Amino acid sequence: MLKKIVIFGVGLIGSSFALALRKANAVEQIVGVGRTQTSLLRAKELGIIDVISTSIEESLKNADLVLLAVPVAQTEAMLAAIKPYLQKQTVVTDAGSIKGEVVLAARRALGEKIGQFVPGHPIAGLEATGPDAAIASLYVAKKVVLTALPENSVEQIAVVAQAWQQCGAIVHELTPENHDAVFAAVSHLPHLLAYALVDDIANKPNADLLFQYAASGFRDFTRIAASSPEMWRDISLTNQTAILAELDAYIAQLTRFRAQLAAGDGDAMYAMFSNAQRARQNWQRSIETAEIQPKQDSDK
Amino acid sequence: MLKKIVIFGVGLIGSSFALALRKANAVEQIVGVGRTQTSLLRAKELGIIDVISTSIEESLKNADLVLLAVPVAQTEAMLAAIKPYLQKQTVVTDAGSIKGEVVLAARRALGEKIGQFVPGHPIAGLEATGPDAAIASLYVAKKVVLTALPENSVEQIAVVAQAWQQCGAIVHELTPENHDAVFAAVSHLPHLLAYALVDDIANKPNADLLFQYAASGFRDFTRIAASSPEMWRDISLTNQTAILAELDAYIAQLTRFRAQLAAGDGDAMYAMFSNAQRARQNWQRSIETAEIQPKQDSDK
Repeated sequence: MLKKIVIFGVGLIGSSFALALRKANAVEQIVGVGRTQTSLLRAKELGIIDVISTSIEESLKNADLVLLAVPVAQTEAMLAAIKPYLQKQTVVTDAGSIKGEVVLAARRALGEKIGQFVPGHPIAGLEATGPDAAIASLYVAKKVVLTALPENSVEQIAVVAQAWQQCGAIVHELTPENHDAVFAAVSHLPHLLAYALVDDIANKPNADLLFQYAASGFRDFTRIAASSPEMWRDISLTNQTAILAELDAYIAQLTRFRAQLAAGDGDAMYAMFSNAQRARQNWQRSIETAEIQPKQDSDK
Repeated sequence: MLKKIVIFGVGLIGSSFALALRKANAVEQIVGVGRTQTSLLRAKELGIIDVISTSIEESLKNADLVLLAVPVAQTEAMLAAIKPYLQKQTVVTDAGSIKGEVVLAARRALGEKIGQFVPGHPIAGLEATGPDAAIASLYVAKKVVLTALPENSVEQIAVVAQAWQQCGAIVHELTPENHDAVFAAVSHLPHLLAYALVDDIANKPNADLLFQYAASGFRDFTRIAASSPEMWRDISLTNQTAILAELDAYIAQLTRFRAQLAAGDGDAMYAMFSNAQRARQNWQRSIETAEIQPKQDSDK
């Protein structure tokens, strides 16, 4: 059992982690740290955290585990603030959806203490935010990707892996580079494509008419275009290289399709559509057998 | 009340139309015609149609209304087969998701009888197909777009409009060209983009790894990529001009975004994302107040 965990950021991700660990009876004391006093008070009121700490030094004393559940852009400053008070037995992890840039930031901020940082990314979320949206089951049957560093010990990795497993999650490992390439393809690119489509339509002179006839295919395709612009700007900037590669491949794919359509090449289009249909159906079957997917995730 | 309606094609669309009219007590006799004997027998067994007709001549005698609920590519041959037996009082409509090409095909097939054809497009569907999937409520609160022709009389248009209204649908009118341009933007383009993304990923050497980390954003974005390749090949070919225009605008939009990303222009990306988010949220609010959207539509 963990004696003390410290959560920086008591939003949906951090608060759900706390609730899940508490439900699993896996932690004695949970300390909350954050910039927003109202969120911290609310988290304490809801029983998500035991203690609100206004001193980083005080909060880190005898901590087993620290979770940074803050926007990726704040990781470096947060780790730099933590470093002077970080005791040897404490392991720090994060929940950022980009790992390459986070690792670079962590190396700059933590220096010789980098081995105490085990980067992580829980593939779970909800459209709602804040401590009120937190649920203990958020991570059940969801993947958490750890991108362990050469400097991490097996024991340090195990502290983080076990905490997530106690939340019900399935822990995977990837290198930071593989992580960022994978999510550029299956998450970041679709988000950008959905934003681009809605923006494209919204900017047309007859946008009102067009939206009037948009139906359920449009609704599902563009659901992710309602995501936070701040978060997706930061993801775009911090995973720039991998996203550019995916975007170029996709523009090339559309350009090929455009040529087939212009040539009236029904066979080529049919082949592409069937290949996609088959792959989509196989994927759907695989997730249906593998895990239960709640309806309203936002998989940052 | 309609004395006799004839439904060519007792799949989901045709059978649901029949069930809805019967439920509204709006028709005395429903005749089914089709290529697949098993579907017709099943439709009769389910009480969707009263009579299976194997003779087009016989089926059309004293018919008030004919619905063609067949793939768009079959419209011309079907109308040509109908023409010799089409009596003056009968109005013919269709359910095709493309209207410009359908109107051209109808003019070729029907000649001087073109005024009897009132083109239509119900914006409703389910992923399931066939008479067993049919439900009387399929069209409730859904839009049906009629693209009436100059040759149609007010009375002929009214026969079709009233039938759809008795199914619970909301009838709109557009020109065939406007219809095809609108659906190219809000339905056809998203389908093609979803197919292209899944095909793109499926063709990568690490496709298995990628699909393993695809989550709920990907799931919703690509749901329409599980649609029928035959149908979308036909839609692509028959709405080629309008789709090419939308595709070009979208590729230009992605190319602009690519330049912003490559330049690290966070402000420009933020502006695009927020514009899309705002438009998506406004649209979502408008459909939530306007109509109830069942979960699993496929809005061809």
